[in-house]
Amino acid sequence: MITTIAWEKERVVILNQNRLPDEAVYESCASVHEVAEAIRSLKVRGAPLIGVTAAFGLALGVTQYKGSGEDFPQYYSNIREELASTRPTAVNLFWALQRMDNVYQEHGDKSPTELGSLLVEEARAMYADDIRTNELIGHHGAQLIHGSSRIMTICNAGALATCGYGTALGVVRTAFRQQKIEQVWACETRPVLQGARLTVWELMQDKIPVKLITDSMAGYIMKLGQVDSIVVGADRIAANGDTANKIGTYTLAVLAQYHGVPFYVAAPQSTIDLSIASGKEIPIEERAAEEVRLLRGVPLTVREVEVFNPAFDVTDHHLITGIITERGVLTPPYETNLRP
Amino acid sequence: MITTIAWEKERVVILNQNRLPDEAVYESCASVHEVAEAIRSLKVRGAPLIGVTAAFGLALGVTQYKGSGEDFPQYYSNIREELASTRPTAVNLFWALQRMDNVYQEHGDKSPTELGSLLVEEARAMYADDIRTNELIGHHGAQLIHGSSRIMTICNAGALATCGYGTALGVVRTAFRQQKIEQVWACETRPVLQGARLTVWELMQDKIPVKLITDSMAGYIMKLGQVDSIVVGADRIAANGDTANKIGTYTLAVLAQYHGVPFYVAAPQSTIDLSIASGKEIPIEERAAEEVRLLRGVPLTVREVEVFNPAFDVTDHHLITGIITERGVLTPPYETNLRP
Repeated sequence: MITTIAWEKERVVILNQNRLPDEAVYESCASVHEVAEAIRSLKVRGAPLIGVTAAFGLALGVTQYKGSGEDFPQYYSNIREELASTRPTAVNLFWALQRMDNVYQEHGDKSPTELGSLLVEEARAMYADDIRTNELIGHHGAQLIHGSSRIMTICNAGALATCGYGTALGVVRTAFRQQKIEQVWACETRPVLQGARLTVWELMQDKIPVKLITDSMAGYIMKLGQVDSIVVGADRIAANGDTANKIGTYTLAVLAQYHGVPFYVAAPQSTIDLSIASGKEIPIEERAAEEVRLLRGVPLTVREVEVFNPAFDVTDHHLITGIITERGVLTPPYETNLRP
Repeated sequence: MITTIAWEKERVVILNQNRLPDEAVYESCASVHEVAEAIRSLKVRGAPLIGVTAAFGLALGVTQYKGSGEDFPQYYSNIREELASTRPTAVNLFWALQRMDNVYQEHGDKSPTELGSLLVEEARAMYADDIRTNELIGHHGAQLIHGSSRIMTICNAGALATCGYGTALGVVRTAFRQQKIEQVWACETRPVLQGARLTVWELMQDKIPVKLITDSMAGYIMKLGQVDSIVVGADRIAANGDTANKIGTYTLAVLAQYHGVPFYVAAPQSTIDLSIASGKEIPIEERAAEEVRLLRGVPLTVREVEVFNPAFDVTDHHLITGIITERGVLTPPYETNLRP
């Protein structure tokens, strides 16, 4: 199993995903700032993993507190804000920090040192929960996969996006063990190529058959009748089922509807944001133009061309066949069925 | 104006488009083999330009004939075959060679030397025709563009894909002169990035506002209501209007229908292949896996991953709002209206 994050010797150790698939390099983050930077620069990515990483980052910050206690609330608020401001779209980040806040509030009487230990424990619990959650998602989702299926996915909603096993790729893993997977179509996922770099690598490690395509080929392959289901992850799901996920997901959902291919979202319940009514309220992160203009440092276009670089899009709920969570497969009407 | 091809000093001079936008380098092809290789390796690309380049290549071969005349028919057949086998999808290649064959058949009594001169003249006429044709396409197509439009395109159907002016970008150019273009959305067009490298460069040379996106962003931008029309080129149009064009075009057409955005194909009549009833009969070129695995020599994924790399897809005629040719804008029913 691939380890994506660990708490070791009072440090947050992360797998630097920007260097995959060339090399699997672990880096030790010695400060909240380094953890925040790892999230911002996509060394650590994937909604569930971002959440747990931020939790470990917050715990790290608290264990490093050196003051007398008086300014601790302000200190906590500052490090929390630094982590919360890294990326706007994935709700798991805010969910994880909220879960840490709950521990803080519950133990307001404890010293910062004691609180630090409790927060490390909480982050570790979230880590373990995440793996268990993914296994359940895999279990429920695999029941949707039949015969010898060809599954299309975008980005990486795999072990690398989580603490292990994966959401969309968790479904693929379980279905593969049940001998129901003929092949995975991995969309390369421009601009950052999480599909080409991470999904391909992860599936090949597990010897799950995968074929790589550019994002532009998805429609043609559906037209050829070579896609049985689409399974993707999610960064935030609104109360009505509208789902933010990697840019390009919405296009796959429209294509799926046109071709009569089932379109599934696989995500933990922590990705569901009942505080917002629809996808219109999900903030969409825009990233640097250089992500599109350059690829691994190589210029692809005219240096000064204008670029639009939204990292996510929102898929309307009526394009989604089912949402696979640890509770089971949720189906429309989502407004009712997403509630606990 | 950008020159893409020229006949100079008994040589076929081409602009090596693989080196754009970094540098505009012209190369002199001294043999049929070099011309064929320039087409195969995408130094020269774009359906109309491939046709004219092959015509000049055939003329070059005939002018270089050194025999006594007896083996000339076999020689002609061999060099013709070398050019015809370069790329299977764009019909303009076969159309151009057929036009050269007609000259040969008409002047069967002439010596190879005399025939060579006639074929050079014919290729030059095709070159001039192509520019005139594109200007007419621009004229007709611009009438479909209203107000202050945002036009989306894929690949490069511009001056660089033709002898000058362009087909889809010919429409944009004329509409821009009429002050009807707010902005062009250029899809980068993986795997070979003709959008990022060629369309962006060409439009910026002409100071036409352009914004670059990855192919995966097209759906989201339509959803945002920021696309007024889509205009693309074509590599082959069947008698029923089904259109082969760069991979990704079909996806744009499905997205356009879903969002109520008009979807236009701009191409000369030489791209219409009345000999085939539908798009099912269009051969789709598959290119090397390395085009997807590497980008400008930089590895993007696991070295040995399996890849599917179709260079084109076919858009069903019922997704096409209109086909813009030098004759005017042809609309459904295409089965009747594409006939001369």
